[in-house]
Amino acid sequence: MGRPFRFTLRATDGPARLGEFETPHGLVNTPAFMPVGTQGAVKATLHRDLIASGAEIILGNTYHLFLRPGDELIARRGGLHSFIGWNRPILTDSGGFQVFSLADRRVITEDGAEFQSHLDGSRHHLTPERAIDIQARLGSDIAMVLDECLAFPATHDAAAESMQRSVRWAARCRARLTLLRTTPLPDVTVSNQGQAQFGIVQGGVFADLRRESADATVAIGFEGYALGGLSVGEPIDEMYSVVQETASRLPATAPRYLMGAGTPEDLVECVARGIDMFDCVLPTRNARNGQLFTSLGRLNIKNARYAEDDSPVDPACRCYTCRHHSRAYLRHLYLAGEMTAGALNTLHNLTFYLDTMQRIREAIKLGTFDRFRQEFVRSSD
Amino acid sequence: MGRPFRFTLRATDGPARLGEFETPHGLVNTPAFMPVGTQGAVKATLHRDLIASGAEIILGNTYHLFLRPGDELIARRGGLHSFIGWNRPILTDSGGFQVFSLADRRVITEDGAEFQSHLDGSRHHLTPERAIDIQARLGSDIAMVLDECLAFPATHDAAAESMQRSVRWAARCRARLTLLRTTPLPDVTVSNQGQAQFGIVQGGVFADLRRESADATVAIGFEGYALGGLSVGEPIDEMYSVVQETASRLPATAPRYLMGAGTPEDLVECVARGIDMFDCVLPTRNARNGQLFTSLGRLNIKNARYAEDDSPVDPACRCYTCRHHSRAYLRHLYLAGEMTAGALNTLHNLTFYLDTMQRIREAIKLGTFDRFRQEFVRSSD
Repeated sequence: MGRPFRFTLRATDGPARLGEFETPHGLVNTPAFMPVGTQGAVKATLHRDLIASGAEIILGNTYHLFLRPGDELIARRGGLHSFIGWNRPILTDSGGFQVFSLADRRVITEDGAEFQSHLDGSRHHLTPERAIDIQARLGSDIAMVLDECLAFPATHDAAAESMQRSVRWAARCRARLTLLRTTPLPDVTVSNQGQAQFGIVQGGVFADLRRESADATVAIGFEGYALGGLSVGEPIDEMYSVVQETASRLPATAPRYLMGAGTPEDLVECVARGIDMFDCVLPTRNARNGQLFTSLGRLNIKNARYAEDDSPVDPACRCYTCRHHSRAYLRHLYLAGEMTAGALNTLHNLTFYLDTMQRIREAIKLGTFDRFRQEFVRSSD
Repeated sequence: MGRPFRFTLRATDGPARLGEFETPHGLVNTPAFMPVGTQGAVKATLHRDLIASGAEIILGNTYHLFLRPGDELIARRGGLHSFIGWNRPILTDSGGFQVFSLADRRVITEDGAEFQSHLDGSRHHLTPERAIDIQARLGSDIAMVLDECLAFPATHDAAAESMQRSVRWAARCRARLTLLRTTPLPDVTVSNQGQAQFGIVQGGVFADLRRESADATVAIGFEGYALGGLSVGEPIDEMYSVVQETASRLPATAPRYLMGAGTPEDLVECVARGIDMFDCVLPTRNARNGQLFTSLGRLNIKNARYAEDDSPVDPACRCYTCRHHSRAYLRHLYLAGEMTAGALNTLHNLTFYLDTMQRIREAIKLGTFDRFRQEFVRSSD
């Protein structure tokens, strides 16, 4: 185990920030993108390829890992890092987002969420304390508080009520972590003594609620702060506006994480508004569906126009796929239903995302982020 | 393009042979195992991993590539090597085996086979000449003659008739290749000028028919000789017996290829009977089904006994999977339906097969093959 969590701000370029954070499993440069490893694996890739594509941290989904193979089994394996053979940083979500997505298979009370497993219908109870205990067993480097994820659209009243509950839950989550840090509990194995915890700002698209949530969450005090409940169907301008106002209200000394976003343009636009961390299934899921991100915009490899196209997906890309294979071959593999199509496409999309982050970081360092941003948005139209 | 096909016998140890053959795309050490890349990709692996696992040659299926993306499209891409981005040797089958497997969707005449595509029901005609033209367009380093694949069991009469037709077809295939080598045909792009052609010995389990077929096939004259129609349901001892008698009747100066076999034990037992080349879907297909080959026998990763097993699949294995991941993790990935399970399992099984071939070659070189064989069969029980 290395050092505990520590964030260092290295440079700024307008609201855009260059930094790094240290975790028990190593350093992460920010702005950072976290590939999503839902069930302990980033779909269709090997860890080796994640590292080659530039991933410094991955995300694990507590809901899925809790149900299968189980957080206690993972704790007995020494924690998630050891179980999956990934010795770099891991962030876990709280499980809340998946539970709230279960719609008619969950009931929310002040205490927490009752839900039925999507796998076998078994009943479970997820409280703020339980979400923290599960993540303690998983031993991620960054754990997230349990928050209530509001559907879009919501009324101001509903958003306010939900946000206030999330704040109360956040306080319970922090209290639980504080307890675990100081007091050994017989039924909770703490797999990672240096685990950090991030709070989550909610409040829908309402500026006043976001402010209230940000202030209350910061008042509790966390190692980092996330923006939740965005990228859930609201107009893109509303999202950018909430991001901008919320980020500016958060302490400069902690990392800011926009959960579940987004497109390559979203990454650039939200770094421009002060965000340091992102996660999204878009590069991996779209890869498996044949949609590839390139420096000249998206392309759908299924398209007949690529049947005899001997050029790589993106001539500007350094990834294994672009160095070894043509669009014609990738189209063939996709249409033939070969698993290799998913693997090669995922490798490319992740490289594109992680290279974009690298370019963002370089631009901030050079003080040229605004020019980079304009060129990026123009070229990917 | 490198040099044309040339086989060199380096050493023998009883009937077991150590050798190598040169192709326009490089050298292959024998005894060799060829991973099956049905549709231009070995399922669930990247070329890089094939090379790392020790693959020197892969097999492509003419039937599948002819239907999708089409041999003419592949020829326009410069041939199969160029299309799939694999610059090492490739052997293609004739398409016959798949066509004969179509059962009620094909009709066989002296001229060839009429069949309907399993993809879209479209009608096609595969003659010996056409099978050679298609493979010329694909540009594999080794092309196979079109043969009639008899179902097991078959009467002596049926086997004789079928074998004699295969011999006539083999002669037509050789004539076609000779024509292509000397005379440019406007509608047949020859993607690989140095393509070799192997004949195929048929005759079911009947020793006299195998002898007749071997003699007739050798009389036509090919760069190598295959044993077809085995590993199709006959008792293992009958297969070994046919292999032994047939191999000994083939010229020592050409490689001998047992088509479609087999288990790791089959590889060792058939090398012991004079076979130089193998192909089989077993390591790749079984990997995707969770069955793993190890130095101590097979294991099924689905088994509950592996749920908390932190050891690698095979402690004796050097592959990426065994160096990085536990049985517990592989079981989880398999049960969770992650594509990564197929990739990691395939990597392991192919490494096990190709390492077995490496060990076979070393044993022949040292003159210790018989001891190796006994230990291998004992340890994998």
